[in-house]
Amino acid sequence: MAVRALVFDAYGTLFDVQSVRRVVTERCGDKGELITQLWRLKQLEYTWLSGLMQRYQDFWALTRASLEFALESAGIMPSAALCQPLMEKYLSLDPYPEAGDALARLAGRDLAILSNGSPEMLQSLVRASQFESFFAAVISVDRAKTFKPHPRCYDLVPSLLGVHKDEVLFVSSNSFDITGAKNYGFKTAWIERDGGTPMPPSSAVGPTEVYKLLRSRPERLGQVADFRIGALTDLPQVVAQLS
Amino acid sequence: MAVRALVFDAYGTLFDVQSVRRVVTERCGDKGELITQLWRLKQLEYTWLSGLMQRYQDFWALTRASLEFALESAGIMPSAALCQPLMEKYLSLDPYPEAGDALARLAGRDLAILSNGSPEMLQSLVRASQFESFFAAVISVDRAKTFKPHPRCYDLVPSLLGVHKDEVLFVSSNSFDITGAKNYGFKTAWIERDGGTPMPPSSAVGPTEVYKLLRSRPERLGQVADFRIGALTDLPQVVAQLS
Repeated sequence: MAVRALVFDAYGTLFDVQSVRRVVTERCGDKGELITQLWRLKQLEYTWLSGLMQRYQDFWALTRASLEFALESAGIMPSAALCQPLMEKYLSLDPYPEAGDALARLAGRDLAILSNGSPEMLQSLVRASQFESFFAAVISVDRAKTFKPHPRCYDLVPSLLGVHKDEVLFVSSNSFDITGAKNYGFKTAWIERDGGTPMPPSSAVGPTEVYKLLRSRPERLGQVADFRIGALTDLPQVVAQLS
Repeated sequence: MAVRALVFDAYGTLFDVQSVRRVVTERCGDKGELITQLWRLKQLEYTWLSGLMQRYQDFWALTRASLEFALESAGIMPSAALCQPLMEKYLSLDPYPEAGDALARLAGRDLAILSNGSPEMLQSLVRASQFESFFAAVISVDRAKTFKPHPRCYDLVPSLLGVHKDEVLFVSSNSFDITGAKNYGFKTAWIERDGGTPMPPSSAVGPTEVYKLLRSRPERLGQVADFRIGALTDLPQVVAQLS
């Protein structure tokens, strides 16, 4: 069955979550690297925990809670004056360098975002990056009141875009998200962003290396991506194969 | 309302998950520390992901999958010959030094375990540690076919022990588990095992420090433990306060 819609994850796929590091380091000095990694790792944990616990809080609230956790862990008081500029960076994360070009080359197809982000966060991101015109729909899991990889999140796509799940190619660099999307029934393309990063010597494994080791490999949960690509600009070729 | 049952988490609370490190290091050399930490972090992730995705696999399968992930991440082939002795250590993890003494001092009360472990894993652990006689019940979340902090896991305790949720004191060193237990309606005692660990200098944050920073603080998800203790041997005093 041909692909009728390309649906993109946002955080880590179109937008670089690591781009908070500069502003965190400006405010927290040499703890910036540690805080950046703890923040993202805990942010993901909080989506899974609140989903599993059936106590939904939106992604803005969980991003703030995880930032406060990360700052406290690093011995820094999570004051409003400190948290506010760091949270604001989440509203204008840097897009990956190739994202605009890749999306432009896919113009004419039905493109959408399906993200854990709250509606307000996604609206800000898409505006700040000037990606608005590319997308037919920007879908927040907030409508499902849970987080990826819960099947209810992916199920928003067929119901809102009017396509069958077989007709969707879901694109993410987050391997847990690929697992969830494939489990739901989408075709999947995994972007291996840190592919081929050589293993550092044991003495040089710091927070960024732990983060990458945890997050940059396929999960071993029984679902394998249909396509494995190196960058968003490889997508036109994938779509051609599916037509 | 008085406490009628004390219910313990197993992994990290009665039994030291870090005690795999010796055997991992024997087999994997100086990558032992990294693999130990990736293994536990990924094991927890897999419980949350498979729970949220509604694709239950038991804890033995997820412990194996996370071990294979950790080994591959560290550049080591996860052969059966390597994985088998490491998995076996999970059947006889070291109990915390004070666990036997603490449980003995609580004898006469209804004590139980509620754990993510599969029934076979828990039976092996309790036998190997000679803790069998202490417990009225050893409850695996396998009956609920999901993982903590899903409320269905905690709900096994009232139904199997014949007590009301208000009458349960739930004991865990895993702060996410305290969050889930409190969210469900238990009284909770959090064991702060790495309490007061000073923040290492930024240049000395390796895998173990990242693990501790992620796992050894209370979660910021809106639930606070009723009691915060330093070791299992503080429990008789907590129970006295509740009588």
